[in-house]
Amino acid sequence: MNSIIKALETRYATKKFDTNKKLSPADMDILLEALRLTPSSFGLQPWKFIQVTTPEVRTELQANSRGQAQITEASDLIIIAAKTNLQENDVEEYIQDIITTRAIGNAEGLAGYKKMMLDTIGARTPEQIKWWNQKQAYIAMGVLLTVCASMGIDACPMEGFDASKYDEILWLDKLELTATLVIPVGYRSSEDKDASMAKVRFSVEKLVIKK
Amino acid sequence: MNSIIKALETRYATKKFDTNKKLSPADMDILLEALRLTPSSFGLQPWKFIQVTTPEVRTELQANSRGQAQITEASDLIIIAAKTNLQENDVEEYIQDIITTRAIGNAEGLAGYKKMMLDTIGARTPEQIKWWNQKQAYIAMGVLLTVCASMGIDACPMEGFDASKYDEILWLDKLELTATLVIPVGYRSSEDKDASMAKVRFSVEKLVIKK
Repeated sequence: MNSIIKALETRYATKKFDTNKKLSPADMDILLEALRLTPSSFGLQPWKFIQVTTPEVRTELQANSRGQAQITEASDLIIIAAKTNLQENDVEEYIQDIITTRAIGNAEGLAGYKKMMLDTIGARTPEQIKWWNQKQAYIAMGVLLTVCASMGIDACPMEGFDASKYDEILWLDKLELTATLVIPVGYRSSEDKDASMAKVRFSVEKLVIKK
Repeated sequence: MNSIIKALETRYATKKFDTNKKLSPADMDILLEALRLTPSSFGLQPWKFIQVTTPEVRTELQANSRGQAQITEASDLIIIAAKTNLQENDVEEYIQDIITTRAIGNAEGLAGYKKMMLDTIGARTPEQIKWWNQKQAYIAMGVLLTVCASMGIDACPMEGFDASKYDEILWLDKLELTATLVIPVGYRSSEDKDASMAKVRFSVEKLVIKK
């Protein structure tokens, strides 16, 4: 079997983490780098990635995540926060980064691209912009979970938390960000019964339509 | 460098595909299997994956995708379609699949889980359900793009298409689905200038917040 398919077969939403097994800092850096490399619409990267290491903060977040044990028991805690809006300065910051990264002499060649981004943003309501940014965050989670699986790192993707409380606790609201996905990462406990349960997925025949 | 990071570094939104290089059927099966294994909220898998092989259909879709060449030039074309709603029968179908896959004698032990899903769905407006399903589709894209990268397969993720036209052409509306993401896959052309451009991403310092 292809190794990445085997990895995706082996991963599961980890209910109980081994509290003694910690990710190495080098592995954590790989996960953050994978998030950083995630593609996004226009390349705008409308997000920040929060790495929560302070135990007291994790306890406080847990109280706002239906008490789910993974928030405090997993080796590490990653939160993907989406920008709540997009404005001209976000586009400008990105354009400047393109210019620097690619050592482009002047911004003229990027004027069309800039206009396209601004037009797209301008055609959407503030609420649509927020949802659009949040959707991009889900790409990052797909990348992260696949990379974790390929490295034998366990994770538990979560949507079930109080985003407005998270935004307050992590000061995300002040940065015009909102907590969108919460992902404890670490290593499964040998006591996690979910680890040995057969994965449930509809068949290829049911999920794939050929046209 | 970690091999998956290297793969993510090497991938890019391919503008020009090599029209002579085709994915092997075995590789295409791996991509569809990776999509099938994608995690989703509650495991509900609110999607279908469309593999478009008919040239005439691809030409028709291209006309509704700002004429982007990749729609017809890439080896293969995958569309991720999200369910436009979620109802009790979707939950029931999933519960039945859990029972079959895990050879569970009766559904009693799943009653709480079923109620939780139905309560969650019931608390959302039809529009929120549609967006929720669409967000899940973005996880599938993140998985797909990472798996493609790990296999040296190129791709070009797209949001810029006329979804309602796609839904008509592919008869998705009749299945209560909507085209959410379009992903031509194949191999880059040696003439694609974008392939050699430096990847633009904000720095770790800018993107990662430690708490």
